[in-house]
Amino acid sequence: MIIFGVDPGTILTGFGIINSYKNQISYVHSGIIKPNPKEDLSLKLKHIYNHLNLSVAKYKPDVFCIETAFYGKNVQSAMKIGYVRGVAMLVASVNNILCVEYSPREIKKAVVGNGSASKEQVQYMIKNLLSLDITKAKFDETDALAVSVCHSIKINSFGTTKNSWKSFIDKNPERVI
Amino acid sequence: MIIFGVDPGTILTGFGIINSYKNQISYVHSGIIKPNPKEDLSLKLKHIYNHLNLSVAKYKPDVFCIETAFYGKNVQSAMKIGYVRGVAMLVASVNNILCVEYSPREIKKAVVGNGSASKEQVQYMIKNLLSLDITKAKFDETDALAVSVCHSIKINSFGTTKNSWKSFIDKNPERVI
Repeated sequence: MIIFGVDPGTILTGFGIINSYKNQISYVHSGIIKPNPKEDLSLKLKHIYNHLNLSVAKYKPDVFCIETAFYGKNVQSAMKIGYVRGVAMLVASVNNILCVEYSPREIKKAVVGNGSASKEQVQYMIKNLLSLDITKAKFDETDALAVSVCHSIKINSFGTTKNSWKSFIDKNPERVI
Repeated sequence: MIIFGVDPGTILTGFGIINSYKNQISYVHSGIIKPNPKEDLSLKLKHIYNHLNLSVAKYKPDVFCIETAFYGKNVQSAMKIGYVRGVAMLVASVNNILCVEYSPREIKKAVVGNGSASKEQVQYMIKNLLSLDITKAKFDETDALAVSVCHSIKINSFGTTKNSWKSFIDKNPERVI
């Protein structure tokens, strides 16, 4: 199963694609989408949309996973993240791919074993789990890979049969966004 | 000039298209996009995206106007409106149309003459200005038409020459989003 993880942001949007097969995961591709900061917001969103669409067309993921909203106190920040999350969700639905979301805490707990883990810890674990040799990986990139790894861990915890994903959806309908 | 106004929302998204020519405005089309409330959020966004895209293809607007964000205290509401605003902005940029935004206060002031006007007053004025005979028009629909009318009033206040729109952008670069 190809899993496409996204860590959305208007300045930097990270994406990480992994292959999950019978409790084993392997790195496929990852990167950062960085729109021109001088561009209008609508053009930035187009840049992110086109980039994600191209990656989906190339790697044909079975599932699209997004880090859930940041529920801080700042309404304007929430709105801005909302723009990119909306566009990322649209990429999933336009390509008829199931879209699932995980909270930052859930991702950290799955990857590091501690819901309050630091970004450095998450990056360290992702590099180890995926045998990555990216020396200068940005947090947005490893965070996106962490979303994918989190999904892989979640579905594998329900068994390694071909039906595990279906059983996961049945047991967790609220995960489907 | 064909102006496409949008009042974004996950439950109801209103859109209103008018023709503005030499200080005169006329109604072209308007409507409500109502995704199935039982559908997943990503499918709702796809529904809104496809609907707006079809209307843009049909009416070929020169400019796309969106009501600015609702800056309430509720972060989750802001995030949800962000999803639809992001998708609406994407429709503009994907179709290479300039995207402009106006605050609710600015729209009310332009249409009614009072930035604190009620929704009923805005609807009343829109029906009069556009000689509308919609008896059961929803607020989302007339609000979207109000965004278009607001834009028409703003550009015409800078003169009715062919260059008025360019001069408007030059004088108000912060309006371009």
